[in-house]
Amino acid sequence: MKYKSLSAMALAIAGVSFAFSEAHAAQISSPSGSIVLNAEVVDSIPVYSVNYKGKPVILPSKLGFELADGPDMMDGFSLISTSTSSFDETWNPVWGENKNIRNNYNELLVKLDQPRCYRKMNLRFRVYDDGIGFRYEFPQEGVLTYFIIKEEHSQFAMAGDHTAWWIAGDYDTQEYDYTESRLSEIRSKMSEAICSNASQTLFSPTGVQTSLQMKTDDGIYINLHEAALIDYSCMHLNLDDKNMVFESWLTPDAQGNKGHMQSPCHTPWRTVMIADNACDILASNLILNLNEPCAYDDTSWIKPVKYVGVWWEMIAGPQEWSYTSDVPSVKLNKHDYTALKPHGKHAANNANVRKYIDFAAEHGFDQVLVEGWNIGWEDWFGHSKDYVFDFQTPYPDFDVDALNSYANSKGVKLMMHHETSASVRNYERHMDAAYKFMEKHGYNAVKSGYVGNMLPRGEHHYSQWINNHYLYAVTEAAKHKIMVNAHEAVRPTGLCRTYPNLIGNESARGTEYEAFAGNKPFHTTVLPFTRLQGGPMDYTPGIFDMDMKEVNPDGNGHVNSTIARQLGLYVTMYSPLQMAADVPEVYNRFMDAFQFIKDVAVDWDESKYLEAEPGRYIVAARKAKGKNDWFIGCTANEDGHSSDLKLDFLDADKKYEATIYADADDAHYATNPQAYKITKKKVNSKTRLKLKAAPGGGYAISIKPIN
Amino acid sequence: MKYKSLSAMALAIAGVSFAFSEAHAAQISSPSGSIVLNAEVVDSIPVYSVNYKGKPVILPSKLGFELADGPDMMDGFSLISTSTSSFDETWNPVWGENKNIRNNYNELLVKLDQPRCYRKMNLRFRVYDDGIGFRYEFPQEGVLTYFIIKEEHSQFAMAGDHTAWWIAGDYDTQEYDYTESRLSEIRSKMSEAICSNASQTLFSPTGVQTSLQMKTDDGIYINLHEAALIDYSCMHLNLDDKNMVFESWLTPDAQGNKGHMQSPCHTPWRTVMIADNACDILASNLILNLNEPCAYDDTSWIKPVKYVGVWWEMIAGPQEWSYTSDVPSVKLNKHDYTALKPHGKHAANNANVRKYIDFAAEHGFDQVLVEGWNIGWEDWFGHSKDYVFDFQTPYPDFDVDALNSYANSKGVKLMMHHETSASVRNYERHMDAAYKFMEKHGYNAVKSGYVGNMLPRGEHHYSQWINNHYLYAVTEAAKHKIMVNAHEAVRPTGLCRTYPNLIGNESARGTEYEAFAGNKPFHTTVLPFTRLQGGPMDYTPGIFDMDMKEVNPDGNGHVNSTIARQLGLYVTMYSPLQMAADVPEVYNRFMDAFQFIKDVAVDWDESKYLEAEPGRYIVAARKAKGKNDWFIGCTANEDGHSSDLKLDFLDADKKYEATIYADADDAHYATNPQAYKITKKKVNSKTRLKLKAAPGGGYAISIKPIN
Repeated sequence: MKYKSLSAMALAIAGVSFAFSEAHAAQISSPSGSIVLNAEVVDSIPVYSVNYKGKPVILPSKLGFELADGPDMMDGFSLISTSTSSFDETWNPVWGENKNIRNNYNELLVKLDQPRCYRKMNLRFRVYDDGIGFRYEFPQEGVLTYFIIKEEHSQFAMAGDHTAWWIAGDYDTQEYDYTESRLSEIRSKMSEAICSNASQTLFSPTGVQTSLQMKTDDGIYINLHEAALIDYSCMHLNLDDKNMVFESWLTPDAQGNKGHMQSPCHTPWRTVMIADNACDILASNLILNLNEPCAYDDTSWIKPVKYVGVWWEMIAGPQEWSYTSDVPSVKLNKHDYTALKPHGKHAANNANVRKYIDFAAEHGFDQVLVEGWNIGWEDWFGHSKDYVFDFQTPYPDFDVDALNSYANSKGVKLMMHHETSASVRNYERHMDAAYKFMEKHGYNAVKSGYVGNMLPRGEHHYSQWINNHYLYAVTEAAKHKIMVNAHEAVRPTGLCRTYPNLIGNESARGTEYEAFAGNKPFHTTVLPFTRLQGGPMDYTPGIFDMDMKEVNPDGNGHVNSTIARQLGLYVTMYSPLQMAADVPEVYNRFMDAFQFIKDVAVDWDESKYLEAEPGRYIVAARKAKGKNDWFIGCTANEDGHSSDLKLDFLDADKKYEATIYADADDAHYATNPQAYKITKKKVNSKTRLKLKAAPGGGYAISIKPIN
Repeated sequence: MKYKSLSAMALAIAGVSFAFSEAHAAQISSPSGSIVLNAEVVDSIPVYSVNYKGKPVILPSKLGFELADGPDMMDGFSLISTSTSSFDETWNPVWGENKNIRNNYNELLVKLDQPRCYRKMNLRFRVYDDGIGFRYEFPQEGVLTYFIIKEEHSQFAMAGDHTAWWIAGDYDTQEYDYTESRLSEIRSKMSEAICSNASQTLFSPTGVQTSLQMKTDDGIYINLHEAALIDYSCMHLNLDDKNMVFESWLTPDAQGNKGHMQSPCHTPWRTVMIADNACDILASNLILNLNEPCAYDDTSWIKPVKYVGVWWEMIAGPQEWSYTSDVPSVKLNKHDYTALKPHGKHAANNANVRKYIDFAAEHGFDQVLVEGWNIGWEDWFGHSKDYVFDFQTPYPDFDVDALNSYANSKGVKLMMHHETSASVRNYERHMDAAYKFMEKHGYNAVKSGYVGNMLPRGEHHYSQWINNHYLYAVTEAAKHKIMVNAHEAVRPTGLCRTYPNLIGNESARGTEYEAFAGNKPFHTTVLPFTRLQGGPMDYTPGIFDMDMKEVNPDGNGHVNSTIARQLGLYVTMYSPLQMAADVPEVYNRFMDAFQFIKDVAVDWDESKYLEAEPGRYIVAARKAKGKNDWFIGCTANEDGHSSDLKLDFLDADKKYEATIYADADDAHYATNPQAYKITKKKVNSKTRLKLKAAPGGGYAISIKPIN
């Protein structure tokens, strides 16, 4: 029944399009010809469709807008002109998976007008060999100057009931476990796909988030996302699960409107990645390529960071961000903390921070994150509190000057932490002073956070006005040569190309959830297909003590991973910002395995995806920046994974030694996660490596040339 | 019928209160005993009432709150304790109508609890000889820490169908003409009381604003307002016009909530001024006395200001704030204004500003306001535009450095102008830089504006979060020794005592409306009773060219005033900030009358209200700060006014010369507004002056000792 109706719909729309003359349609192919895009005006409605190697990937799909302050832009369009162009350029990111990125596309510009409203609207399509992007452009012509979007109605009509890896559409959180299901099953699986969050606003029983990874029954991988989300609301997707048509669903503001526009302007790019090999989806640079080049003249101050931090003992253990139990509620700067009795669980204290500094210095880490260093944590969250932090006043047992001096004397930096409690006006009021405080004390990177409901009240984490704030925080930080790693902010859409001091985001369910309720074992086999398409994630891998007894002897939580997989994540989860998240006491017990975390690079000349299947496994190989060292990582789902790796990416004339950190034969993420074996082996470009990842396991390999 | 039902209600409630034992009630009198306040708990509801000289002024009125996040605080209260205290202090304002202000009251603190919710709430009443104030206090006891107010239900039960001078209750504007009517007529007169405004949100057919001036049939003047509005939403009044009971009606936020509270905290003071002489209402310092003392250690930089400005020619004439017609819409800092064609009507140009500087220097003015000096005015308003101004970039024809140098060389300062277009995030983002820009260029005062709908969208001009912004702008300005005159901000509530760099507000229908559609002739006989209770207004008097032909030869508007009244307003409309709003060309034609504006003081040692009746006339006399000069002003409604003034406030042992600027016998605001006569006369403390104000007229007198 389902397929029948889909086919009927496709035929119906196709039937209409046949009736139109060529003047109403245009076609463009990707450079290799593998992807073909059609754009036309059907019954006065703009429609596009996409084929891949002759198969329909996007069936004819309508494009348009409902406006809140004028007649809609859903129909009444006529085609003025079409034009095409080509682009081929190789550019170099400030940091990234590859030192060279090729940006090669054919472009189709479709100029439309809506004569009854005297409006103009253009559609710009870029067709790559690994997918397409399109955006709406509103020229400063006609009468459309200021307008308010009630909803964007961009359709993505699927050609079948694909398998999807999805999380629930939400205006305020992305921290959900993924569900693998048919599109037609989304509705029935929605309630079990949702867990509670500090701020969450679901909107539809078939609403999902981007980046959405799908696979067709005939083996085509399709990924829907967006690129260059600037001055616009974040796009979700709502599924018409009778016809398998996704439609854009923007995040509203406090008044329910979804976009305040001023022409000339354009939407972000709506993207469709397409490949018949899952590795090609992971290797795609489509999102980055659709972003603008770097906006900064000087990027010498932007450097990848490997760090440890005062964090896991609060997340997984009984330690606290707060300092005292003496104040039932905090009015910032009204309390003399030095006169209050410490509750004794404040982790950001001088002795503990020094311990981390010593550990970082001994093992070559760049920075030490310290959360809970500043006053206000006693009731920081859940009260819609405006003046919640000042980002400048330390607790009495955190000596900013002394600790930074101590760290600097050992070649280490402290990493700043700015939890905002989603009180963005308060953060903006203190931002300049907070950044100056960082400069004064030698900090050059900040982890920021937006936990809880938004202030201004009624706004959402992903609405246009708040998205504007996140970018403001990044560009203001750049004025102080500060790198930003924003948690709970809107999901990334490749803006790190333009603003490379945005070195990380959370915007998904990270390792912290292993301490809260656990992540599904397949979680890290999905994230690189979805969340990581837009930019790096501060996933904070490196947990070795899976039962977390070191930080919480009384706890009964469990991290759904093996140690070997935790190592593999440093390669599979690309990020220029990598944490070793467990505590020094644990690493000291597993120093042989910890060696991989010490060795692994955080910036790369080249990346290869060797084996991949969403929800199953990922194997990535990367060549360290400016070196001949290679690192390989694998993560597997609960079924484990057997690899057969060809090392043909190694230099044919070089010899190497590989150190292999693998799951022991009896390793298992649930029952035996700490069983690993480390072996060394001579390898070269002809070597084939057969390796096994345990259920919920993985492996890691470092390969170094032998001199 | 009306009176019958009122009396019945009064008796009914009084009957209930008789039944209660003394433990549930408390009574307190004003220092002289003229005002008596009762507070009691009736049927578990807090109730208060007020008598004046034995007559009921506030009938038993309930107090309470609806909460958005918990059980209401409307009943279930019991009285824990009552206590009384007295206070008598004389303090000196930084600037004001009087150099000495006596703050003398008896206080009653009523401690309540709401046992079923484990909550505590206190009521603090202060009883003065000229009225009462009360506020709710939420101690940090019991379980009430964070809570959200859905509505405050403070009643003000009137004892009759009084005459009132009112404007429509509105969350976003106060710029309405006053209506004089019985309370019972408010509903029927509401629609004609409303005119359109750039941002307006009416809420009830019987909703009115504070300060609300009333008069009983037996000659008691009652005024309802609030004092010390900090971290709370602005209170309006909604009338139950069957029972003549006003009830508080707060301004909501974007989610419809009306207050986010964190104990310990309190509401602003709710005030009831009471007198049987209208002059005593004008002379009352109740609102100031209920505010906290000055928050600044150093106030030497705060100085009253008399100014002219580049303004009236845009308000009343065809000149423009904008520079060019070349850009259909502005994207700030994306246009090179030097390459755009000026439209030739930009008033803030170097030559014109120099003309004003010359005029100010010649006639002893302190400052020259220049509006429209900065880029962005081409489409600054009505588009819910976020990045609308940067407050730092001048138009090409406004040379900031040269004009400030020129002004300074002549002993004059330029006055800064920050129109925000109600985009408060944008203003806050630029605020520090904008204030620094002012410091750098020698500005020490700013006129700010909040025209149009608020950003963050959904917030209102008078909601808690935005009120917080206005005060933030003032306290941040103080860090740069900058004085603030904020237009379209929330109505003042005496905060200028605590923050005396808040030297002015608009918050009412000012002179500009004379150019738009005219103010009712009685307007300035009402404002001192209402709007000015909370603090000074930048009313911008001094218009001499009532048909505005000098600035707009083709216009047909008319200012509803005589010239003599325009002079009188400099005395009747107390403000430490006074503009001479007409253009130099006009003043040059009336230099004899203009002399009064040059002479009149802007700060005072002593003020006397000699004759007053709301909506009819006001005569005020004030002694210049640190001098023996007195100035008298009169404003009258369309009936004119006959004065019989006793000058017994003059020193008995001194002789004086009075210069009287009076309406000519045939003067009339509508038909002959420029007819005035200036006479000089020797006067002393025994002199009686009989003077006549024409319809819509007035007079002004300067009295100087003869050496």
